[in-house]
Amino acid sequence: MSTSSPWAETDGLERPHAAAITAPQGFRAAGVHAGIRKKRLDLALLVSGGETSAAAVFTRNLAAAAPVLVSREHLRLSGGRARAVLVNAGNANACTGEPGLEAARRSVTAVAELLSLPVEQVLVASTGVIGQPLPLPRLLRALPHAVRALARSGGADAATAILTTDLREKEWVQRVRGKNGNYTLGGMAKGSGMIHPDMATTLAFVTTDAAVPAALLQDCLRRATDASFNRISVDGDTSTNDTIAVLANGASGVAVDPALPASVAAFEAALTEVLIELGKLVVRDGEGATKLIEVCVSGARDEGEALQVARTIAGSPLVKTAMHGADANWGRVVAAACRAGVALDPERLRVAFGDVVVLRPGFVARFSEAAARRALSREEVTLHIDLGLGGATAKTWTCDLSAGYVEINASYRT
Amino acid sequence: MSTSSPWAETDGLERPHAAAITAPQGFRAAGVHAGIRKKRLDLALLVSGGETSAAAVFTRNLAAAAPVLVSREHLRLSGGRARAVLVNAGNANACTGEPGLEAARRSVTAVAELLSLPVEQVLVASTGVIGQPLPLPRLLRALPHAVRALARSGGADAATAILTTDLREKEWVQRVRGKNGNYTLGGMAKGSGMIHPDMATTLAFVTTDAAVPAALLQDCLRRATDASFNRISVDGDTSTNDTIAVLANGASGVAVDPALPASVAAFEAALTEVLIELGKLVVRDGEGATKLIEVCVSGARDEGEALQVARTIAGSPLVKTAMHGADANWGRVVAAACRAGVALDPERLRVAFGDVVVLRPGFVARFSEAAARRALSREEVTLHIDLGLGGATAKTWTCDLSAGYVEINASYRT
Repeated sequence: MSTSSPWAETDGLERPHAAAITAPQGFRAAGVHAGIRKKRLDLALLVSGGETSAAAVFTRNLAAAAPVLVSREHLRLSGGRARAVLVNAGNANACTGEPGLEAARRSVTAVAELLSLPVEQVLVASTGVIGQPLPLPRLLRALPHAVRALARSGGADAATAILTTDLREKEWVQRVRGKNGNYTLGGMAKGSGMIHPDMATTLAFVTTDAAVPAALLQDCLRRATDASFNRISVDGDTSTNDTIAVLANGASGVAVDPALPASVAAFEAALTEVLIELGKLVVRDGEGATKLIEVCVSGARDEGEALQVARTIAGSPLVKTAMHGADANWGRVVAAACRAGVALDPERLRVAFGDVVVLRPGFVARFSEAAARRALSREEVTLHIDLGLGGATAKTWTCDLSAGYVEINASYRT
Repeated sequence: MSTSSPWAETDGLERPHAAAITAPQGFRAAGVHAGIRKKRLDLALLVSGGETSAAAVFTRNLAAAAPVLVSREHLRLSGGRARAVLVNAGNANACTGEPGLEAARRSVTAVAELLSLPVEQVLVASTGVIGQPLPLPRLLRALPHAVRALARSGGADAATAILTTDLREKEWVQRVRGKNGNYTLGGMAKGSGMIHPDMATTLAFVTTDAAVPAALLQDCLRRATDASFNRISVDGDTSTNDTIAVLANGASGVAVDPALPASVAAFEAALTEVLIELGKLVVRDGEGATKLIEVCVSGARDEGEALQVARTIAGSPLVKTAMHGADANWGRVVAAACRAGVALDPERLRVAFGDVVVLRPGFVARFSEAAARRALSREEVTLHIDLGLGGATAKTWTCDLSAGYVEINASYRT
């Protein structure tokens, strides 16, 4: 597991992990109750104080939701600028056709008017049930309240307001200290079902007070997403609403300069770290999850093959149920690896659960069941598999599969 | 759902679905307790009386189990002939290396000696836990009992002895009446986890008293498997031991003649029917399953695209949990279809649960919740989706995902 702490350097906020999205300078946020969900905060607004670059990656599902279509269009029209992001929970505004698109457009128009912003600088995201009309009047009625509530301290409420079946807020702050000065990144995300690699999964928003040109921001986001949210899986399904957006307002006075590779590398590393940590928080809070499983593949010929094996293991319901039961069932790990479509030699495989090696080449499986069970009973389990073919590695993150997942999803809509 | 009955024409056997594997003439079978599993029948033997053609399809998992390697080799050496099949439950003899291969070889050698058969005419299959040494002494001690118990009536015990976590036997009989005479096919299968398309999934054995040349038998089996076992999914995992074998001994006096297309078509249709019905029995008895879901895709441009959409829907845990809860959550069906990698137009989709249309083109979703819930509360649910693009169709079969699946798999090994 990562040894970094979410608050290695605190900024004096009252609760840890709170208001991360407004930790960078020049951002205000609010989370209010619009009545889309019962008795819970369900509408978040994030606003940047000055000219702000923006980049985003969206779902690849063909049934992309109305807010995804609108945000994608706005980023194109604005040339990669955005000053505000509106997010509602409780309704995905997906599979809602032309009326859904119209509702999304009216919501961003209202935000633009209230904040005196060009409408194309407002992004929008929705999460919740698919195929129900967005309750636009409620949302519009709540907007002025959200605008009035905007504050640096409002990041915590915003992080709460974007949740659906999530049990807890997902926030992360990362500081970057450089020769030209320091800047901060803050992120918030929501889970926790319909989560699978390769679709810019779920909702996540990152702010930074570094100045980053829009094109560079988009490049960094794409690579950071590939190394983080594209490597997590809860259940193999892909949402219609997945969005990761990053806003950079330069309020720190520090510029990430495309001409200085070290400056770009530092920013991209920090962005990747934020997204990996948010991604792990999403998995840890996956529907029904009781533990976080880090799948580490080593000894592959190349990273692509390592990743393919890691993803197949992370997606295997039999591996995930065994992890749930703390059952050292290495056979299921081997079976999953051997159907990943990679030319493996099963006899070369090594498998370890945490520090306990359970399988050595030639299918030698002598290990302490008690030690393996202890390793698998932790809240964070590392599952290692070495292919014995080369030097390439890859990691993915998943959670265990529990009866809780079924309970949550068998009657989500009704 | 299919309207055909498993026993449309009974052959006078005492219990329905019993001894199907020995319904064709000239086959005897036995199921005995060897002590590999506790207190349950765990060793099946199937023997054909005369010269018998054989064909088989096996797992594509690279960690193919020892019995798969031995059976594949025997079919090659014998040129597609087999007189006996030995099957044990309780131990997969997979990921067991050279000692596992040696154990599989010794078991078929013992069968060959007891039955005075060439060893390459004995096939072998195993199912159960992966990575544990096969308890060969117990198996060898039980073999003479199995040989003594061989009988036409022994098919029922054989169908019991091949089960693992299955709750019930899976058997099917099909009669073929032709101009040249009548013949019979009988099949048995086991499930019920690690089941997914495209890997000649699980264990299934089919006998027939038609005479079918080995090469033709292999062709028919490949196509029949593609239309049946390659279209079922329980959990998306693939076993190391998957085997479907078919034996044709000609005892009926009826020959399937490669030169007569009608004769081949009739045989292939019957074989496909047996495998589809066995496949549906496997799904219906999937780990934790409470209902069988038939996914019917229509309106596709070609069958490949229809199948791709059908498989993606059948594999979606969110669709499967909604079906478990009888929740008419058509949004999840649409979301799954739209990530299948097929160029769909989401606005053209139609969705129905049973007879209840829940979605019309343009995302028009007006329907009776009560009627939809009734349709979804049946033990057999048909999920229709029309893509509105063309005339091609495809079907797959899956089960709902329940808390029972998790309970069974969280502690299978220990």
